[in-house]
Amino acid sequence: MNILEERILRDGIVKSGNVLKVDSFLNHQVDINLLEEIAKEFKRRFSDKPVSKILTIEASGIGIAAFAAKEFGVPMVFAKKTKSINIDGEMFVAEVESFTHKNKNQVIVSKKFLHEGEHVLIIDDFLANGCALQGLISIVESSGAVVEGCGIVIEKGFQIGGRVIRNLGYQLESLAIVDALDAETGTITLRNQD
Amino acid sequence: MNILEERILRDGIVKSGNVLKVDSFLNHQVDINLLEEIAKEFKRRFSDKPVSKILTIEASGIGIAAFAAKEFGVPMVFAKKTKSINIDGEMFVAEVESFTHKNKNQVIVSKKFLHEGEHVLIIDDFLANGCALQGLISIVESSGAVVEGCGIVIEKGFQIGGRVIRNLGYQLESLAIVDALDAETGTITLRNQD
Repeated sequence: MNILEERILRDGIVKSGNVLKVDSFLNHQVDINLLEEIAKEFKRRFSDKPVSKILTIEASGIGIAAFAAKEFGVPMVFAKKTKSINIDGEMFVAEVESFTHKNKNQVIVSKKFLHEGEHVLIIDDFLANGCALQGLISIVESSGAVVEGCGIVIEKGFQIGGRVIRNLGYQLESLAIVDALDAETGTITLRNQD
Repeated sequence: MNILEERILRDGIVKSGNVLKVDSFLNHQVDINLLEEIAKEFKRRFSDKPVSKILTIEASGIGIAAFAAKEFGVPMVFAKKTKSINIDGEMFVAEVESFTHKNKNQVIVSKKFLHEGEHVLIIDDFLANGCALQGLISIVESSGAVVEGCGIVIEKGFQIGGRVIRNLGYQLESLAIVDALDAETGTITLRNQD
């Protein structure tokens, strides 16, 4: 068991509706030491890939992706969820449905920042049904860049996202996989990945 | 002139409506080396303050705040702009109006992550009219924690935000201050802070 898994079991809180709250260390308050360890583990798992850019999606992926980008020594791009007046010109657009917020968002990345010949590692904090990740993959493929893999901090193994991405042939590395959440007892069951 | 100022003059793009686009290095694509230099400069400017927590607001503040938190060796908290089903319980709430998006957002921070006795440095990428920063200050003050200062990457010196915050007596450090933007000529005028 790694320090992320230990932390999830210690500080993760289960809520009804298969919600796992990790807001004390990952996606509201952020433990920077843990973030650095996560980034180093992504570097280790994708060390054979010629990564030239890290791509994530706002908001909670940004801190993780920034430290991963530092490990790889490459720039980071974060996709935006709503059209901003500060983004104009040509954009890659994908429509994704959020599991958490139950709404649809357009995910956009400026065409200035993804090009043919680039090798992209996609990073995010959670993978559930995988719509956000599918949107990011779709954007990278549209750009002509190569998806070198997907690095996820916590995968909900009981939802379909992980299987879909792996079935599509992408290297998906989830540092922790949650197989079950029991809101009544507060029990978190992690998949043994050793 | 520091490397941030040089970068703004080189890669910043002026759009009509006093918009300065820095999306090639700060808030869409992110230059991680620059982020680290920014974080070190915040550490230098607030080195005499007993900072125990970094507070920012999603989304584009997160990467900057994460590296600043690493420099200070403290946790980072990012305020959220919309109510998420993943946040429940008691929250600090402030209503802020975005200059960029022309809409109102509720800024929220869980009461679990801000307490009396904490010393908070607030970090954000842009300061214009200052509503977001005022919202964050209001939240910290409500919690009983101390605002040790505000670190901003780019202040629009021709808008009122900086003066309001300084008039309120807070130590506000803006690494670059833009005094004028001319969309016709593309000219960016920076304040000499040497």
